[in-house]
Amino acid sequence: MIQTPDQPLDLKASDYALLTDLYQLSMIACYCGEGLENQPASFELFVRRLPSDFGYLIAVGLEQALEYLETWHFSDQQLEALEKTGIFAQVPQKFWSLLQGGKFGGDVWAVPEGTAIFANEPILRVEAPLWQAQLVETYLLNTLNYQTLVATKAARMRDIAGPEAILLEFGARRAFSPQGSLWAARAALAGGLDATSNVLAALNLGQKPSGTMAHSLIMAFEATQGSEDDAFRAFHRYFPAASLLIDTYDTVAAATRIAQQVQKGELEITGVRLDSGDLVELSQKVRSLLPDVKIFASGDLDEWEIQRLKQQGASIDGYGLGTKLVSGAAVNGVYKLVEINGIPTMKQSSHKATYPGRKQIFRAQDDHQIYYDRLGLAHETPNPNEQPLLQLMMQQGKRINKRETLATIQKRTRRSVESLAPQIRQLDHPLSLTLEVSEALENLRSTVKERLQSELING
Amino acid sequence: MIQTPDQPLDLKASDYALLTDLYQLSMIACYCGEGLENQPASFELFVRRLPSDFGYLIAVGLEQALEYLETWHFSDQQLEALEKTGIFAQVPQKFWSLLQGGKFGGDVWAVPEGTAIFANEPILRVEAPLWQAQLVETYLLNTLNYQTLVATKAARMRDIAGPEAILLEFGARRAFSPQGSLWAARAALAGGLDATSNVLAALNLGQKPSGTMAHSLIMAFEATQGSEDDAFRAFHRYFPAASLLIDTYDTVAAATRIAQQVQKGELEITGVRLDSGDLVELSQKVRSLLPDVKIFASGDLDEWEIQRLKQQGASIDGYGLGTKLVSGAAVNGVYKLVEINGIPTMKQSSHKATYPGRKQIFRAQDDHQIYYDRLGLAHETPNPNEQPLLQLMMQQGKRINKRETLATIQKRTRRSVESLAPQIRQLDHPLSLTLEVSEALENLRSTVKERLQSELING
Repeated sequence: MIQTPDQPLDLKASDYALLTDLYQLSMIACYCGEGLENQPASFELFVRRLPSDFGYLIAVGLEQALEYLETWHFSDQQLEALEKTGIFAQVPQKFWSLLQGGKFGGDVWAVPEGTAIFANEPILRVEAPLWQAQLVETYLLNTLNYQTLVATKAARMRDIAGPEAILLEFGARRAFSPQGSLWAARAALAGGLDATSNVLAALNLGQKPSGTMAHSLIMAFEATQGSEDDAFRAFHRYFPAASLLIDTYDTVAAATRIAQQVQKGELEITGVRLDSGDLVELSQKVRSLLPDVKIFASGDLDEWEIQRLKQQGASIDGYGLGTKLVSGAAVNGVYKLVEINGIPTMKQSSHKATYPGRKQIFRAQDDHQIYYDRLGLAHETPNPNEQPLLQLMMQQGKRINKRETLATIQKRTRRSVESLAPQIRQLDHPLSLTLEVSEALENLRSTVKERLQSELING
Repeated sequence: MIQTPDQPLDLKASDYALLTDLYQLSMIACYCGEGLENQPASFELFVRRLPSDFGYLIAVGLEQALEYLETWHFSDQQLEALEKTGIFAQVPQKFWSLLQGGKFGGDVWAVPEGTAIFANEPILRVEAPLWQAQLVETYLLNTLNYQTLVATKAARMRDIAGPEAILLEFGARRAFSPQGSLWAARAALAGGLDATSNVLAALNLGQKPSGTMAHSLIMAFEATQGSEDDAFRAFHRYFPAASLLIDTYDTVAAATRIAQQVQKGELEITGVRLDSGDLVELSQKVRSLLPDVKIFASGDLDEWEIQRLKQQGASIDGYGLGTKLVSGAAVNGVYKLVEINGIPTMKQSSHKATYPGRKQIFRAQDDHQIYYDRLGLAHETPNPNEQPLLQLMMQQGKRINKRETLATIQKRTRRSVESLAPQIRQLDHPLSLTLEVSEALENLRSTVKERLQSELING
């Protein structure tokens, strides 16, 4: 235990360099001592398995990864704090000088945001001096794992709900930290949602935030002014024709009163929101009372629930999506050394073996459909019907391309999903895309395996 | 769509005021127009149901909530961005002047961090002018929902693993955003873990970060120097006797070679880590080879897996806990208006009804055990064996108490869990604590229900 006070957690961009697992720094210290720190190294980021019940992933989070790589550096204060831990008492001085002036100067290959990817396919490759490529692991995994999860869920929800449905991101209160809510909103829009209720996220992304009202408004008016209808009327004074939340006390009664007022011309209304109860039955009743009004549903909805509501004949135009979109089991991306100093490497642990070498995904596709992916070595030539998916995004620490707009990413996501076979898109027991492995990669794997075996035998 | 560029997401403390759902601002605009904005309001934060398979929750996240309430304010730039959305074109000018100079000036009652709580018990109550109490909902839920989730999981893991086990937080790469990883580390330590591998989180919390090495170190040495043993020896040059990761190629072979070197006096070692394979069998084999060495296990572990490993006779001294600790289904805290201008309110929606009025949790306990909780009104007197749990934490926007240390919170968590009955602590179908409801609260609920009914009948 270090004798410094228990301070508040504070997050500034300049702090990010220390947002890493301790072992990254320990390994770098070791590399410095052994003269390995500047060996050219390649690491690839991929998932070993798709999350349960997912047939594909939509890669998102590259933007934040590149931003991080462009800006990370250590302040003197950070290095001092690190030194004071005493953990690095016996490491060479080179370790400190490396960190002190260090910037990221490597290359990054990655699939563009919004691309559909599958198990064992590299989403991103870092080629950099060993110490740099190693240090950035934790942060890169953090941004790509989470945003890919949310974007994929959003894409699945959009796919099930259909292109006409209005899908709103309402997850800020259930996201895992405030910054988590910002990243969730970005990834949700990239994955195909229409808008977010998160004001800060929307403004940062150049979007208009969206939302209706909470039960507390109805309750506040009920207690102080007398009725639910007073609340509706008051809200419309400032937000004319805004959607109304009608389930605070009795949904059907509220819809009936609204319908009467609409008929008499006393009220104009574009939408209502239902947040509880039997959404199939209630939405049908509300539809019969208010045929021209958009009906929004919310309350722990996910792609399965949207599917069920549609199958059971609910009459719903839009969905507010929160908890299930922004939380849940993580995407388990990993970041593995695949080559060092030109020598391919791989891991052989049981059930966790990897493919060695710098790789490329060759995707066989036309304008309408993705047929298969072939995992090959980076230098291989694609077949005529194949596209290489990994692109050079950063060279010697500088971005190659302009930042993409959210609209571009959203469009790519839509095209990606539409070009997948229905069996890959279905929620129940989806298949995954066929992943072929090139002969060159299989041969390399055998060669590296033999090398590892002979070393193990020779000690 | 607003015509501003797609900018990077950036997080500064001063941005937090806009990290809210749009409807909070819309409702405030409506309150301003109707002269309700400064009505004294009380909101309570609680969960309707415990997460599935949880018998209790450990409340954590208050510190970040208070920090937020103490500092939030709107900058001119933020208000300008908000105005440009066009959403607030028809609201009274008072709305803008309120936000412009606005600070939080209310009272906050809450249970101290580390307290065990149950469904329908307020974790926190805000008493403030309506507009302030409403605006802070999103952020308060965000911090308390997430940190409570992680702290509870950590407490469950500690409870199952036992007081002697070494429990390490390794979740940074799987947490939902970088800030999410910082909050997860804090909550994990508050819940009973020993240390975190997250360097920034550890330094901010005044802790020493913890960690071993990754497979990439072994692979880098294998490829460039020749063997796994070279990697072990090199690492020990800078971190003498550090724990070694022994499952990159063949766990038992590595342990056997290490044992031989230890016997010959060529190697000193305190620990080994296993990250794959059959942990029961491997840990037993490693124990027989290296009886005096601490064995750490990692790889998608959670409280269920720790229980299984222990029941099946694994020989493990410490656990690295990541993915399952920091991700997963959210704690679904809600924040509900319970009183306005002295008038108690409640929600009546199907399955989502709430208790009206400002409440207190009266906990019947002695030094050893919690017997039951009684939910009553804030002004009720506790029975002789009962303690009121909600304490005044902030008065007119100022903190009452000094910031608690993590050690204090950790100790409170431990005592909380230890004083719960085994049936509440068990992983399989845990019971929850008996929650009694005071007569006064039941009476109030009936009265408010009648009032709501009569209003619904009278329109």
